[in-house]
Amino acid sequence: MSDDSTTQSEGSSGYVSSGSFERKSRYIPERITRDGRDGFPVEPGRYRLVVSRACPWAHRMILTRHLLGLQDVIGMGVAGPVHDEDSWTFDLDPGEVDPVLGIPKLKDAYDARPEGYPDSGITVPAFVDTTTGRVVTNDFHQMVKDLVTEWGEYQRADAPDLWPEHLRDEIEEVSDLVYADVNNGVYQCGFAGSQEAYEEAYQRLFSRLDWLSERLEHQRYLVGDQLTLADVRLWPTLARFDAAYHGHFKCNRQKLTEMPVLWAYARDLWQTWDFGSTTDLDQVKAHYYATHRDINPTGVVPLGPDTSGWTTPHGREELG
Amino acid sequence: MSDDSTTQSEGSSGYVSSGSFERKSRYIPERITRDGRDGFPVEPGRYRLVVSRACPWAHRMILTRHLLGLQDVIGMGVAGPVHDEDSWTFDLDPGEVDPVLGIPKLKDAYDARPEGYPDSGITVPAFVDTTTGRVVTNDFHQMVKDLVTEWGEYQRADAPDLWPEHLRDEIEEVSDLVYADVNNGVYQCGFAGSQEAYEEAYQRLFSRLDWLSERLEHQRYLVGDQLTLADVRLWPTLARFDAAYHGHFKCNRQKLTEMPVLWAYARDLWQTWDFGSTTDLDQVKAHYYATHRDINPTGVVPLGPDTSGWTTPHGREELG
Repeated sequence: MSDDSTTQSEGSSGYVSSGSFERKSRYIPERITRDGRDGFPVEPGRYRLVVSRACPWAHRMILTRHLLGLQDVIGMGVAGPVHDEDSWTFDLDPGEVDPVLGIPKLKDAYDARPEGYPDSGITVPAFVDTTTGRVVTNDFHQMVKDLVTEWGEYQRADAPDLWPEHLRDEIEEVSDLVYADVNNGVYQCGFAGSQEAYEEAYQRLFSRLDWLSERLEHQRYLVGDQLTLADVRLWPTLARFDAAYHGHFKCNRQKLTEMPVLWAYARDLWQTWDFGSTTDLDQVKAHYYATHRDINPTGVVPLGPDTSGWTTPHGREELG
Repeated sequence: MSDDSTTQSEGSSGYVSSGSFERKSRYIPERITRDGRDGFPVEPGRYRLVVSRACPWAHRMILTRHLLGLQDVIGMGVAGPVHDEDSWTFDLDPGEVDPVLGIPKLKDAYDARPEGYPDSGITVPAFVDTTTGRVVTNDFHQMVKDLVTEWGEYQRADAPDLWPEHLRDEIEEVSDLVYADVNNGVYQCGFAGSQEAYEEAYQRLFSRLDWLSERLEHQRYLVGDQLTLADVRLWPTLARFDAAYHGHFKCNRQKLTEMPVLWAYARDLWQTWDFGSTTDLDQVKAHYYATHRDINPTGVVPLGPDTSGWTTPHGREELG
């Protein structure tokens, strides 16, 4: 996503005059669909999902692909946690080149687009068409939904319905609030250019977390009585909360471990739905602390927090 | 203390080649004594203790003066939490001048010394002789002990014996370990110039905190069965742990609130001995986050943590 891109710096260029951090939100609008109306039909093995395990926006795609059992249908390229000055790079791969795309930098696949790309920059997640080597789209909101709706015939037999028709309005409503105040809210705390902008973002963030805690006190999932895209939307921010946002972004009223309902909810997802297997907190920390030199000049990466609590009993089975 | 001085920067000038932060430790050796052998006899009303409520080293003097009931005998000048580039300043006072000393900067009292002062700089706590306006000493280790031993006749009738003869060796031993690994250890984490130096300091810090937790599990105080200078030594670091060191200095294995024995011990001191009244966490945060621009370039001061837990029951009365 843009905050983790290299052409939209998280630091100074993200500030506006009020001191608030604003996120650029133009993405490549092409879609991969069953009918192939944009020239990109759903096709097993054709597209490569490029992610970084550090990035919360990419995390939603990793998670959705995992929940729907699309791993054998959509290959995944994994960029390292620390990008260089102009691109995410495949520095974790042998020879520092993606083994399928054959490129060292994700930017190469963006540059392969004759039509160019928006100034939101080189972002993950991105779908690359392996037949042409070109990025198809980086519009993460749409990409997640399309995994659910367009790739239906390739999902595993018992895949959950993450976006049921009768709940879509409510999922959209909750997800929008979560996006504005939580997913993006933590960045607005961390990249605030003034005390006032920080305090405004902090109050919005924790008010929303209190609202989510109340909502989740008597129901197991955010919307309806099932796992949905609303949970997928919230989770990557909760997963990163103590490791990155609490200290690095000054979101420090409490740790996640000190918010009992949200902490139990997060552990439930980690354990029951195997969200934990999609989560790499070492890469998360490496990314945030090493990349944002404007707020962590030394680049030192903290050894904490202790993460042993993630696998302790959560007690939410009784909520259904 | 030197880390909060302005001539010894906490940042680059504190680094050595290995990347470890080292603290300069030369202080003015004169003492205020009963026999007045250095020219400064104990005398009610004559000396002004200059502190900042933000500084953990000054906090020990504030605390010891409070515990011994010396408030009416030794006046206290309070510098603001954010010093300027060459001195702690009296910016909290009317007219931004200390009402007794009549000076705007503590440096004025250092400069009034014909014999000069060590390159550890303009530090708090400092004793100023009001008859000459000169700093007498800034040797905080000795100053704390001298409050106990030299000012005995002016202490309140039921003042605790913070440095009993028969426990002095053990107090010294424990205090030295606490100083090296905890009081100073948090600074070595925060100002580490390399990942290796940080990790070494972090491991030493939390090993020592584990050792202290074991020690305090079955005894109420650090040494013997009474409050001593060993507890006074440890406490200012515990008090600041979640507000400053956890996030700002990356001491983040757990918060104090997540270390059950130390958290109960700290609440006991806060409540039973009124340590809380000597503690101003807003000034602590203002100091650390606004002063150390080398590790917090924006100067934004976090709103957290929630401190409501300090006054909850601690359950340590049964330890005696």
